Amino acid sequence: MVRVERIRKDLEFLAGITSTPGEGVTRLAFSAEETRAREYLRKEMEAAGLEIYQDNAGNLFGRREGTLKDAPVVMFGSHIDSVVNGGAFDGPAGVISALEALRVINEEGMETVNPLEMVVMTEEEGGRFGSGVWGSRAMAGIVSEDEIYKGTDSLGITKAEAMESFGLDPASVGKARREQGSIKAFLELHIEQGPVLEQNGCDAGIVESIVGIRTFFVTVKGKADHAGTTPMDFRRDALVGASRVISEIDAIARRAGKGTVATVGMVNVRPGAFNIVPEEVQFSIDLRDSSEPVIEAAASEIKKYLEEQCSSRGLAFSWEERLSISPVRIDPGIMSIFQEVAAEKNISTHVMPSGAGHDAMVMARVAPVGMIFVPSRNGKSHCPEEWTDYDQVARGAEMILGAVIRLAD
Amino acid sequence: MVRVERIRKDLEFLAGITSTPGEGVTRLAFSAEETRAREYLRKEMEAAGLEIYQDNAGNLFGRREGTLKDAPVVMFGSHIDSVVNGGAFDGPAGVISALEALRVINEEGMETVNPLEMVVMTEEEGGRFGSGVWGSRAMAGIVSEDEIYKGTDSLGITKAEAMESFGLDPASVGKARREQGSIKAFLELHIEQGPVLEQNGCDAGIVESIVGIRTFFVTVKGKADHAGTTPMDFRRDALVGASRVISEIDAIARRAGKGTVATVGMVNVRPGAFNIVPEEVQFSIDLRDSSEPVIEAAASEIKKYLEEQCSSRGLAFSWEERLSISPVRIDPGIMSIFQEVAAEKNISTHVMPSGAGHDAMVMARVAPVGMIFVPSRNGKSHCPEEWTDYDQVARGAEMILGAVIRLAD
Repeated sequence: MVRVERIRKDLEFLAGITSTPGEGVTRLAFSAEETRAREYLRKEMEAAGLEIYQDNAGNLFGRREGTLKDAPVVMFGSHIDSVVNGGAFDGPAGVISALEALRVINEEGMETVNPLEMVVMTEEEGGRFGSGVWGSRAMAGIVSEDEIYKGTDSLGITKAEAMESFGLDPASVGKARREQGSIKAFLELHIEQGPVLEQNGCDAGIVESIVGIRTFFVTVKGKADHAGTTPMDFRRDALVGASRVISEIDAIARRAGKGTVATVGMVNVRPGAFNIVPEEVQFSIDLRDSSEPVIEAAASEIKKYLEEQCSSRGLAFSWEERLSISPVRIDPGIMSIFQEVAAEKNISTHVMPSGAGHDAMVMARVAPVGMIFVPSRNGKSHCPEEWTDYDQVARGAEMILGAVIRLAD
Repeated sequence: MVRVERIRKDLEFLAGITSTPGEGVTRLAFSAEETRAREYLRKEMEAAGLEIYQDNAGNLFGRREGTLKDAPVVMFGSHIDSVVNGGAFDGPAGVISALEALRVINEEGMETVNPLEMVVMTEEEGGRFGSGVWGSRAMAGIVSEDEIYKGTDSLGITKAEAMESFGLDPASVGKARREQGSIKAFLELHIEQGPVLEQNGCDAGIVESIVGIRTFFVTVKGKADHAGTTPMDFRRDALVGASRVISEIDAIARRAGKGTVATVGMVNVRPGAFNIVPEEVQFSIDLRDSSEPVIEAAASEIKKYLEEQCSSRGLAFSWEERLSISPVRIDPGIMSIFQEVAAEKNISTHVMPSGAGHDAMVMARVAPVGMIFVPSRNGKSHCPEEWTDYDQVARGAEMILGAVIRLAD
């Protein structure tokens, strides 16, 4: 059985390694804080009998051999980098669950057929260089030269320079790539970052899909006029048109399907004065669903409504796609294994999509993947208030432990 | 008859006195540009036989005596200060019309019973110290110590310091106050700053009222959530609620009355990221009508709709009044005189409200007022493209001339 006191000690120790003490966890990729966190993890992994190595992208592994030579590895873990002023659980909950599962396996002297590897992924958040899920992308072989040599952090340091100071050779990132078939399964435990488990009173979420994302940047253009001297009938108010569209986007998502979400998070109104009719409104659309056709249909419906509103109000518009990520199906076999483990250990579960992207989403390119969510208090994440009770993390770690043993057997 | 060539020469000369050559007229109150413009006007006023004086607020007058001793004065004019990067007509059209009317009266050797005074008002726009209609407020006795000694321009200069450098004693502003009964009538010609006259093909607008203005600053507060992991039913999206209200404000104004206008010109969405459900939206409301009860009813209807939307969506809100200016009725006798002059001179007119505030609005506190609008090309003002044809200004000047002669007789 996993031990909650160890999980608490690990998570509390990592929470203290931040460049913004008192203001949440800030632990950026290839930073002094990440180095200190890894030093702690290396010691703990060694104590758990693991063989430690680092790949050319900076991902850190703790390996435990299986009984069958050259068998594909069962891999599990998450990341320890954070956003700026983030929380103590997004990432570390998955890393420490993996560590704790391996401690139990080691203590109990279990043998597995397949080798086991826990992984500490590098720069999942993209909080430093803006290029997230870096470690998993390196394993999937989808990183670019540009992001290594051109993109910089806020101090003008390139990722290549940061890697070198971390003892890595940026020219050798390609070697981090994993062959198809070399990983039997990839499992990740992560905090939910939403309110569903807490509201449903469930211990763990069994993720059935990672949603696809499409984002758009819309500009609506009308005419700037004096707010006092321009009668209503003479106006081409970009904001009135945009407001109609923004409220309809909400309605479209609610109608589209039970898992569809749509968000307008960013709005700019120009010129932005009390007494001037808005000439131009820019806004973002973030649209997510587990089904590509549902996303497609919702996007079309939004665009059609936008066209109608603009045409009837004398407004022009532009519609620019910014991001398109396809949904990822979780392996049904792994989901069944999680169900068995939950039944055996009396852990209540809820099958649900993941609305956020994770390393598992990328690892699905090279291996069957499975994901476990643990509850987020008030649904909050990426903030100092981010919280999951330690026994909730422990129950999630039991799910990982049980599934790893089954998968590697 | 007024002479369009003189009007053109005057307006072109003033248009050249700007601190932003090539980027519209910038002529702030008590600036070097205003001083140069006044030097030109002083010479022209002297040439028109006027006796020149300045009051303690900086308003510049050109006086022509009447035949009746101590009779109340017929006053007319406008301002020559501008907004930053403004146009050549907002203000100067009224000052130059007044000057041209007095030139004609002087040339034709007319005698009037009442004395005539043209006035060049100071800081109507508030473009420098943010305290507009300064000159007329000083005449009405409603200026504050704070705006003289505390408010500053963008360089940190107080109005008191600027007045001193202009040769004025800020402690004596009170002396600029005009007694009730001392002004028989105040007339102002101004550009419309809207599209109505151009669309109707009319030469001049006879203003029937200056609209009242109420402005509000609204904050809608919901909950920030992750755009991917928060199902629609769990959201308290401040922007969806605010969008409903913003589009309803437009509908309420259209229903309220034929002259009602309502504008949401400023919107801030926080935190303002693509992938975060908006926690807080702030927006402005600018509501205008000629009738106080109509404004009152529209404001109540907007607030009620806001309350309903927030209550049904789990949102909180605050509602803060920022400005409340009562509508001003134009003197019906002066409107009749304008109608007679227009009929006599074959000038087509349209009776309309003024949607913007003007010095005449303030002067209504001490005298009966009348206002004439001349057309604004494409309804534009407060920008370099601001334009009124010189013969349109000249027809407006004929209206002023005709009305002044009747009022002073």
